Amino acid sequence: MENFNFYVPTDVRFGKDRLGELPEVLNEFGKRVLLVYGGGSIKRIGLYDKLMTILKDNGNEVFELSGIDPNPRIESVREGVALCREHQVDVVLAVGGGSVIDCSKVICGATFYEKDAWDLVLSRNYAGPALPLVTILTLSATGTEMNRNAVISNLKTRQKLGIYGKNLLPKASFLDPQNTYTVSQYQTLAGSADILSHLMEQYFDLTPGTEVQDSIAEALMKTVIQCLPVALKEPDNYDARANLMWASTLALNGLPGTGRKGAWSCHPMEHELSAFYDITHGIGLAILTPRWLDHVLNEKTLPKIERFARNVWGITEKDAMTAAKMGIQALYDFFVLNGVPMTLPAVGINSEGEFEAMARQAVDHSTIATAAFSPLNVEDVVAIYQACMKDSHFI
Amino acid sequence: MENFNFYVPTDVRFGKDRLGELPEVLNEFGKRVLLVYGGGSIKRIGLYDKLMTILKDNGNEVFELSGIDPNPRIESVREGVALCREHQVDVVLAVGGGSVIDCSKVICGATFYEKDAWDLVLSRNYAGPALPLVTILTLSATGTEMNRNAVISNLKTRQKLGIYGKNLLPKASFLDPQNTYTVSQYQTLAGSADILSHLMEQYFDLTPGTEVQDSIAEALMKTVIQCLPVALKEPDNYDARANLMWASTLALNGLPGTGRKGAWSCHPMEHELSAFYDITHGIGLAILTPRWLDHVLNEKTLPKIERFARNVWGITEKDAMTAAKMGIQALYDFFVLNGVPMTLPAVGINSEGEFEAMARQAVDHSTIATAAFSPLNVEDVVAIYQACMKDSHFI
Repeated sequence: MENFNFYVPTDVRFGKDRLGELPEVLNEFGKRVLLVYGGGSIKRIGLYDKLMTILKDNGNEVFELSGIDPNPRIESVREGVALCREHQVDVVLAVGGGSVIDCSKVICGATFYEKDAWDLVLSRNYAGPALPLVTILTLSATGTEMNRNAVISNLKTRQKLGIYGKNLLPKASFLDPQNTYTVSQYQTLAGSADILSHLMEQYFDLTPGTEVQDSIAEALMKTVIQCLPVALKEPDNYDARANLMWASTLALNGLPGTGRKGAWSCHPMEHELSAFYDITHGIGLAILTPRWLDHVLNEKTLPKIERFARNVWGITEKDAMTAAKMGIQALYDFFVLNGVPMTLPAVGINSEGEFEAMARQAVDHSTIATAAFSPLNVEDVVAIYQACMKDSHFI
Repeated sequence: MENFNFYVPTDVRFGKDRLGELPEVLNEFGKRVLLVYGGGSIKRIGLYDKLMTILKDNGNEVFELSGIDPNPRIESVREGVALCREHQVDVVLAVGGGSVIDCSKVICGATFYEKDAWDLVLSRNYAGPALPLVTILTLSATGTEMNRNAVISNLKTRQKLGIYGKNLLPKASFLDPQNTYTVSQYQTLAGSADILSHLMEQYFDLTPGTEVQDSIAEALMKTVIQCLPVALKEPDNYDARANLMWASTLALNGLPGTGRKGAWSCHPMEHELSAFYDITHGIGLAILTPRWLDHVLNEKTLPKIERFARNVWGITEKDAMTAAKMGIQALYDFFVLNGVPMTLPAVGINSEGEFEAMARQAVDHSTIATAAFSPLNVEDVVAIYQACMKDSHFI
């Protein structure tokens, strides 16, 4: 195990019907609130009206930034920064999924940043001050509600980049599983694939002696594998939604990743798919991951992939290599069974024409070329994209 | 899953040789430090000298409170409070295991408490202010390094009581597994039994839909089961010590317990053993737990005990009741195999004379009579103590 820090002071308020606590939380920071949200689903589920009543009764002055897109754009960040500066906002209240919260995080930092907001993203690591952020989560997926990361897209430069900010951690996050009852089957699938990917990106690693981290990652993977089919079948099953939500938060708050580097290979490859074709992030990850595992399966990586097969999928086959392949197949079959479109053509990418360009960007914008689990060069990435063009059989 | 809060803002600095960061951490609070430690083991391992050099170089004024006993006494708390008030201490630095840290927590609170420190303990829940606390952990066991609880003993009143304090959470904890290399086999065993007990006390619960919490508890139990024998055989095996240390912290920082009540049955029964006979807490827990599980095994508790048998101990027996019993036996055998004295006579308790009195106190001082997993009355507790008088076979 390598040395690590673990310091995640987000005040998590998990459970049913806790918005009555919102005034107490917000009042610590001030009365002038920027409310950030997406395309209106919070209005459809009645959350917007509930919030406005609570904020009005609390004497808050509310400014609004709505219409945040999936893969949130730098333009939305700039708009939010302008509002915060103009109205001297005290606290940002993000109501939505990962896109809304990520956008809000960068608004919080960029409000105090001298240069343009995109320069802050390009810095990749922001240590400066930030407005306080409170979140109300409506999608179980990215884990942003309890970490310091955000991902912002710039369509003009065809870039989708991650930014880490010491002071971008939400001060408090309200996690009410009921707010995910109306999330569509497709988005529930994509979110769960995202959670699984976060866990696998940290789990597939060769650092010795990370038993705590490995077994916690396995625990959370098994939780998702058990609860996703229930949530798909019964969208308002509270416990299934609750376990997916809490798993999504814990999957990326540091616990499964501390003390090691992780693989972080599928995310850079997927970011290019999203940047070039604007496909759904979690679905891209589901398509890529089994092909990536198959591509990097070798003597060095075998023990970890075999462990994954046995501990996560219950494979009992004796031969290590066969067991590992059965584990990869089980992951693939799980996605197929739950309805994920598992090839690139199935999500509208029919040509291999951009693979080389995307692979180059994936290598340039990340550390996959030197990644510890299994380094990937441009040819590797192209081969993995190619493997995603048709159905796969791994055994 | 029930509603819960999760907010644990301790700055954990985990890993090798990080005391160079101590000045930066302490300076945030001030220069006047109360150094609290136990019986001198920190001098034997050279930690005391290292610390004094660092503190001197940092210009700290250091006051010392040493000789904190296992099962820390209220008298030590009072002594610490007097020192903090007399010298206007800015920050308390606790260097040791659970006893030293627990004692320090109550010192931090009682310094600002108007009445006697024991009154603060008797209040059981302290919401008032506290001095900041920084810890350097030297024993993997209680998890106090990342939570708001402490346990203090009063030999005069024969009481050992837990206290929860909103502001008693350590501000920062340095967790260097190397500091546990010289922990004896017996104390390593007792500490690991304590970790396992914390996990089981939270895991054995009937709240539906706590998959995240259950699987994390199983993950941490399996980590201890795997790493304890290694640490006993090779006391300076870094990874074994590191995993035990991180497991001990996560076992009681809220993660396995959020969203449910837990059993918390063996701890109250053990507190009476310690209060009456001053035996080692973790060993008492190891002796009690299998007998308690056997005593409460019934139709209602069977599914959870069966799950424990299958997921933690890998039992594949088909019959649920037999599988559950095999799980209890596996837990018992694990302790035997690793050298835990597994009967009360083996730890010097040869008479049943106090069982009734202890059982009455256990019921009076805790919630076991109404505990959700399986309520225990005085007769139950006596029967469990009696079962601990001789070797057990559960199948």
